[in-house]
Amino acid sequence: MVTFESIKMHLNIDTQRFERIGQQEVVLAENKSRLQLETICDICKESAEEALFTRIIPIDGVYLAENYTSAKWIESAACLLINNGETLERYSRVHSAEKYQVSIVSGGSSDFRVCNEAALTLAYFGIQSRIFPDIGVAGIQRFFDAADAISLAKIILVVAGMDAALVSVCGGYFHQPIIAIPTSTGYGAAFQGQTALNASLSSCAQGITVVNIDNGFGAASAAARMLSMLDKDSVI
Amino acid sequence: MVTFESIKMHLNIDTQRFERIGQQEVVLAENKSRLQLETICDICKESAEEALFTRIIPIDGVYLAENYTSAKWIESAACLLINNGETLERYSRVHSAEKYQVSIVSGGSSDFRVCNEAALTLAYFGIQSRIFPDIGVAGIQRFFDAADAISLAKIILVVAGMDAALVSVCGGYFHQPIIAIPTSTGYGAAFQGQTALNASLSSCAQGITVVNIDNGFGAASAAARMLSMLDKDSVI
Amino acid sequence: MVTFESIKMHLNIDTQRFERIGQQEVVLAENKSRLQLETICDICKESAEEALFTRIIPIDGVYLAENYTSAKWIESAACLLINNGETLERYSRVHSAEKYQVSIVSGGSSDFRVCNEAALTLAYFGIQSRIFPDIGVAGIQRFFDAADAISLAKIILVVAGMDAALVSVCGGYFHQPIIAIPTSTGYGAAFQGQTALNASLSSCAQGITVVNIDNGFGAASAAARMLSMLDKDSVI
Amino acid sequence: MVTFESIKMHLNIDTQRFERIGQQEVVLAENKSRLQLETICDICKESAEEALFTRIIPIDGVYLAENYTSAKWIESAACLLINNGETLERYSRVHSAEKYQVSIVSGGSSDFRVCNEAALTLAYFGIQSRIFPDIGVAGIQRFFDAADAISLAKIILVVAGMDAALVSVCGGYFHQPIIAIPTSTGYGAAFQGQTALNASLSSCAQGITVVNIDNGFGAASAAARMLSMLDKDSVI
Amino acid sequence: MVTFESIKMHLNIDTQRFERIGQQEVVLAENKSRLQLETICDICKESAEEALFTRIIPIDGVYLAENYTSAKWIESAACLLINNGETLERYSRVHSAEKYQVSIVSGGSSDFRVCNEAALTLAYFGIQSRIFPDIGVAGIQRFFDAADAISLAKIILVVAGMDAALVSVCGGYFHQPIIAIPTSTGYGAAFQGQTALNASLSSCAQGITVVNIDNGFGAASAAARMLSMLDKDSVI
Amino acid sequence: MVTFESIKMHLNIDTQRFERIGQQEVVLAENKSRLQLETICDICKESAEEALFTRIIPIDGVYLAENYTSAKWIESAACLLINNGETLERYSRVHSAEKYQVSIVSGGSSDFRVCNEAALTLAYFGIQSRIFPDIGVAGIQRFFDAADAISLAKIILVVAGMDAALVSVCGGYFHQPIIAIPTSTGYGAAFQGQTALNASLSSCAQGITVVNIDNGFGAASAAARMLSMLDKDSVI
Amino acid sequence: MVTFESIKMHLNIDTQRFERIGQQEVVLAENKSRLQLETICDICKESAEEALFTRIIPIDGVYLAENYTSAKWIESAACLLINNGETLERYSRVHSAEKYQVSIVSGGSSDFRVCNEAALTLAYFGIQSRIFPDIGVAGIQRFFDAADAISLAKIILVVAGMDAALVSVCGGYFHQPIIAIPTSTGYGAAFQGQTALNASLSSCAQGITVVNIDNGFGAASAAARMLSMLDKDSVI
Amino acid sequence: MVTFESIKMHLNIDTQRFERIGQQEVVLAENKSRLQLETICDICKESAEEALFTRIIPIDGVYLAENYTSAKWIESAACLLINNGETLERYSRVHSAEKYQVSIVSGGSSDFRVCNEAALTLAYFGIQSRIFPDIGVAGIQRFFDAADAISLAKIILVVAGMDAALVSVCGGYFHQPIIAIPTSTGYGAAFQGQTALNASLSSCAQGITVVNIDNGFGAASAAARMLSMLDKDSVI
Repeated sequence: MVTFESIKMHLNIDTQRFERIGQQEVVLAENKSRLQLETICDICKESAEEALFTRIIPIDGVYLAENYTSAKWIESAACLLINNGETLERYSRVHSAEKYQVSIVSGGSSDFRVCNEAALTLAYFGIQSRIFPDIGVAGIQRFFDAADAISLAKIILVVAGMDAALVSVCGGYFHQPIIAIPTSTGYGAAFQGQTALNASLSSCAQGITVVNIDNGFGAASAAARMLSMLDKDSVI
Repeated sequence: MVTFESIKMHLNIDTQRFERIGQQEVVLAENKSRLQLETICDICKESAEEALFTRIIPIDGVYLAENYTSAKWIESAACLLINNGETLERYSRVHSAEKYQVSIVSGGSSDFRVCNEAALTLAYFGIQSRIFPDIGVAGIQRFFDAADAISLAKIILVVAGMDAALVSVCGGYFHQPIIAIPTSTGYGAAFQGQTALNASLSSCAQGITVVNIDNGFGAASAAARMLSMLDKDSVI
Repeated sequence: MVTFESIKMHLNIDTQRFERIGQQEVVLAENKSRLQLETICDICKESAEEALFTRIIPIDGVYLAENYTSAKWIESAACLLINNGETLERYSRVHSAEKYQVSIVSGGSSDFRVCNEAALTLAYFGIQSRIFPDIGVAGIQRFFDAADAISLAKIILVVAGMDAALVSVCGGYFHQPIIAIPTSTGYGAAFQGQTALNASLSSCAQGITVVNIDNGFGAASAAARMLSMLDKDSVI
Repeated sequence: MVTFESIKMHLNIDTQRFERIGQQEVVLAENKSRLQLETICDICKESAEEALFTRIIPIDGVYLAENYTSAKWIESAACLLINNGETLERYSRVHSAEKYQVSIVSGGSSDFRVCNEAALTLAYFGIQSRIFPDIGVAGIQRFFDAADAISLAKIILVVAGMDAALVSVCGGYFHQPIIAIPTSTGYGAAFQGQTALNASLSSCAQGITVVNIDNGFGAASAAARMLSMLDKDSVI
Repeated sequence: MVTFESIKMHLNIDTQRFERIGQQEVVLAENKSRLQLETICDICKESAEEALFTRIIPIDGVYLAENYTSAKWIESAACLLINNGETLERYSRVHSAEKYQVSIVSGGSSDFRVCNEAALTLAYFGIQSRIFPDIGVAGIQRFFDAADAISLAKIILVVAGMDAALVSVCGGYFHQPIIAIPTSTGYGAAFQGQTALNASLSSCAQGITVVNIDNGFGAASAAARMLSMLDKDSVI
Repeated sequence: MVTFESIKMHLNIDTQRFERIGQQEVVLAENKSRLQLETICDICKESAEEALFTRIIPIDGVYLAENYTSAKWIESAACLLINNGETLERYSRVHSAEKYQVSIVSGGSSDFRVCNEAALTLAYFGIQSRIFPDIGVAGIQRFFDAADAISLAKIILVVAGMDAALVSVCGGYFHQPIIAIPTSTGYGAAFQGQTALNASLSSCAQGITVVNIDNGFGAASAAARMLSMLDKDSVI
Repeated sequence: MVTFESIKMHLNIDTQRFERIGQQEVVLAENKSRLQLETICDICKESAEEALFTRIIPIDGVYLAENYTSAKWIESAACLLINNGETLERYSRVHSAEKYQVSIVSGGSSDFRVCNEAALTLAYFGIQSRIFPDIGVAGIQRFFDAADAISLAKIILVVAGMDAALVSVCGGYFHQPIIAIPTSTGYGAAFQGQTALNASLSSCAQGITVVNIDNGFGAASAAARMLSMLDKDSVI
Repeated sequence: MVTFESIKMHLNIDTQRFERIGQQEVVLAENKSRLQLETICDICKESAEEALFTRIIPIDGVYLAENYTSAKWIESAACLLINNGETLERYSRVHSAEKYQVSIVSGGSSDFRVCNEAALTLAYFGIQSRIFPDIGVAGIQRFFDAADAISLAKIILVVAGMDAALVSVCGGYFHQPIIAIPTSTGYGAAFQGQTALNASLSSCAQGITVVNIDNGFGAASAAARMLSMLDKDSVI
């Protein structure tokens, strides 16, 4: 009874978003049925436009990658990429790039997926980033070892769960815009990222901005807004 | 028994902050005793450096302004300003400036103090802002009337309490970096700003960043970090 | 040991509800065992009365539809409909009807199921509605494109998750009764719909009423109460 | 330094609200400074338009009533009324009216102020209501004694704190639209009205709508929206 | 490596509980491993004493019933009963008994399991109860129909989820001790029973006591404490 | 404008409560205006009936005691007692009575007011109690010293703040009905009594019932319900 | 009516605490009436024993110091000290001591009172501490400047509000036992210290223990327990 | 696409932790992908160093134990141990050791896993502990039976869920350092361990320290910090 046609009517794509805010719409796959995801893939297929789906569960990611030749399932970021041009190339350099506009600093290796979602989204928006993994405050010398390289970027994303102490350390040390991405790692009093979120918002360092828990995509989009203030020529 | 000398020892001022992050330390007056505030004023008096105290209660603000000739109590922002140079001049233009780097858009006239704290802090950091008051979503034509003027700035701060719907409207309309400042206006299910905070973090518009509830200072500091990415010459 | 007979005793159906409040009882399937659901189906079978089950999980919905010829599993609304007369006909027109008493405006395609539960319940109560999908505030021009059609209805339901900004936009724009249905879409600070709920309750627009999170049925029932104020003749 | 002129600029009155939604703007006095309130009074004075301020603290209410001859401080509702015509007349009949469009049913005498805010706002919108005080479920015979009189109205507002049990009793008994106004009465596990709010939203009766805690104004505004569905002639 | 012997050491059974408080220990099966449950069954087997396990998951309940001849899996109450004597007999009469010391009044058929856990525990403690199912406030005439029969008992347990309005109705109507058992039925603002719990604690009726969410066992144990105040002879 | 007459109409006293539940109505003074309290005092004066007001603030308590000769302000319990007969006599024996039906065990001397509210309410209902103060678990020998005397009563109330550990100690030691009264003493993670409340509800001892935070009145009322199960002759 | 004698009966002092746990009882003044405080002072006067009252409000502290010659009001710690011997001497050296067993590291000057409560309690237990004020992570060089001096102690207390990032920095750097004291400084998302508490509990550094919000006394008591493991001779 | 090499780069092991804080890093397995866990196992294999993984899910624990000969899956503690030397030997004595530095007291047999995680971590740090299981306050004589044996240790860990009453009982009875480990056992108002956590933080006994919910590892690490204050020779 629920047919393809009836579903298609439910999509009301914001085709003017790029003109207004300079960024394409990105599809939040979570909470969408497979039928809805397939409908969007069909539209992309027709238009041959690039598209990015975030927070897609593995079983859907693999299914769509198998059924649409233009779709790639990026397990490390839990994303699906369609008709990608240079996005994957940029993403492949997130641990090795020597020139990067955004540093993504991570508190622990459990925040892996969120770092990658941010890096992939930046790549999708045409921005090269570099990930500095596992810079936990519990071994603070690791922070100082990486500090010079981190500060080569124009913007710094700090991905941190639990107590998110890394956010304040970065905020007090770097002059760049800092975007905190609290993550849901930890248990008990970590409250699925709420503690990291509140700690980031209450940071003793000044001028920190914060996005939603695990929202690598949102931080990347915010960073892209900031970089758009610069002359296009200065962009890598 | 608690003497001035013993208190003074408790201050451990971060004198290198400007060198590291390009911004002076600002004093959070809330929760500090009057004795502590006086000690800081004395230090400022000796050094003749400019200083800003935020979230100061009226009785302390008036007292200090009466006892330190260099101190001005800014009731509209609940701030104290010491040895100010051009800061007040910039602040006096927040409703009339024709050139401004930051637009401060406000959801309702109850958010007045927070808007002013942001504008005064920006002024203190050398940045001209303009306040667009009372642009509530409940009468959305007011938003469209002001939209062109708002978009003249490089960065947009959105000050909004209750449901913070203005944040998403701005986020979907402007390409600039958007910093949401949720406020504690409202009652009942507004939960002292927590609803506005969570709504801002969950905004359906992409690339919004958020600061703590009522944190006009923090948003201003974040905006200053972003503007520091630009050539100094382009700054008004 | 737990037999059919002993279960049947546990049902104490409110047979006078229609006389009192003008609406039949609707069965909340969630948290009921399959044995309980079967018992209710048996009673319906005997009485040949129409019945509606909401929030039924797919495995139970499919099972009952297979075992009771009068039962239809409506996947798009997660409902089961028994002995339906014109209900499905009305439901089939929710995207195409030209005359409708209720407009159901939706913030995003993830709120699909809740919209459908509201539309199906309205159909069950004899009321034609129309769904306006995907009118997110992040692309506000979509709202203005649909506004005239939305306002043809007597009552407007606004289905919105995350920050529920659409609620205030509608509340400030339309003169009709507005019923907000906050949804559990979103993650992190969306807190399973609690943020959308609190934002709706704190709306800056005046005269908004709110139902429980994801409660499409409840909003439909409230709308039916309101429409019952009108002359029956004016009903489509 | 903060002058009258600079304040006035902060007001951006939504002058088209009546045309759009059929209701005047009502001023939420809470969180506004006295200077802001005076500015609004001055504007009303010039325009000679009727105005209503809700949630005004006694000291401000008395002050304004003393300084503006057109202003009346209504202590029982914590409201200020300006240039009122027939509003007070209607309000004076809330315990005696024989014809009324809205019944306001109250769980306990502590909810007094909220009932009155609703009744006064309705009067301001041209609607006669009647208050049925102290109909607590703990002595349920009081409910049945009043039930017939309550049901003479077109719409029923239920004002209830603590566990808000009255909401479900009304919802299961009357066919009219029901608007629950949870109140902040009670202590401990009443959580300043949050329990009454959540209980109202989770009501076992179907088709209940809910407004914010203590929001008598909002419920009145919602009732006015609903009544506007009717022919003007049928309005008392 | 984890052997039976090492587990057995972990049990430190409170063998004097009956002497102290007049009730046997009851085993909370939830969160215990199957190995732990088997160890307890073995001990019971040796001692041939009666035992009751509550909150046991079906897969464990069935497994133990299959492996210990003295064990019976009571699906309707999610309990396991070992070496039972007259307990099951009493339990089989919970819908038909004409003499009963405890009335168990239930708000809706979704609270079925909790009612049964209470009735079975009472039976285990030698007390006959009767269940009055589905007495929801949404159809309050059902309450008045059953009120006389309910009041034949010495103690009344009220099992209610969502807004738990039934608790106040009973508390205002009956003179007996009332024990409220809030349940986790409902969704959204029902918050897994927290709303029912807080509503019960905030009841407008006086002298209500409350146990933990879904805690049929605890309410039965409390009722047994109360009944132990009476002469043993008066017990059925 | 708000006159005595108009207020009086707001009172809808439940005159049949004693007949139904065997207890008089008790007035919760909190959140009532002084005018409302005076109205109730006037009614009592006319009827010459005994009355009890709980949770009355000192300034109102003193005022009413000064203006109504039949009223006594009981500071230790924050209550007002009107036309009292033997109530005060019983209350004066709460530390010395040798025969008592209820033991009130207190965790710390900060819970003083709540203990007294319970004892006074019991006295008002004709029941003698005895208070066992300061039996904190931090010095558990104090508990064992008093245990025999505590167990002379038929019912035990446990008044405990912070972690409410005393509740479980009593629950595991005594066979009587136990009613826990969590209190709001403590700070930080005590969360105004919520921790004591949740700890009482989660007690590892079986058969504990709980009332609202600081609700001495409610516990007394519940105890009176339980004692009413006994032959009147056995009551002291 | 409430007389001194009747109050005295309410005190049930734990006279054996020192023997059991090696520490005297300390009086939590908060929530005690002045009459209760005076009673305790009278008992101390008779026994001539040293006593410490924590969390005493200034008006009570000053009053008692004026009325009991043996009592000293310590404003900086919000404590009252009775019959003190060497306690004040030790307390006077908290900023200058060269030998100290406990380092008290503080995140900001707003945590002043809590630091002092910890230092005074330690002094009362015979332990010398040293306070390292204002070591905020926002200027992390201040931490490294003080690190060697901090590590001279056997135990480290970390007093930190807002995001409590200092806790993890200390935990990852020092080998000593670390006790985190979260404080209620900060606003909005700091949630009166709950964020600092949860962040401390979720610290990414291993082996941190935590006490209640603002609980300087509790941390001092815990440190005294730890130091009691050492040979008495090694204590300063 | 996600290859072994790219993952390995994400590990940034804190090799200097032992030198700084005297304890090896322990791997929190939760939230790490199997690929990440395998990478760490590979590194351990190369270095032949001992390692401990906590909070590992059974399916991963068994898989790694089957694929790495040096790895042992310890189901009772939900841990994986690699290249262990004497750790398992110490762990095998946790119920029989006659000499032990740490007593682990447990409130109920459901806290089994957490006790074992603490005991195994202590063993890994070279410390012998002894577990005293099932010492629940509901049968307090069990506590007194074991008290002498418990007090033979230098440090006492108290593992307790639900209301955590055992924490205060121990805190008031023993002079040793007490570390409370609240656990997530219980349901409803136990709130997944939050009630036990808050009760422990609000304990009426003085000088208790607390770790995160279920954090046996953290408590063990804190105990090791404390024991490191002693002469190494006194360690068993």
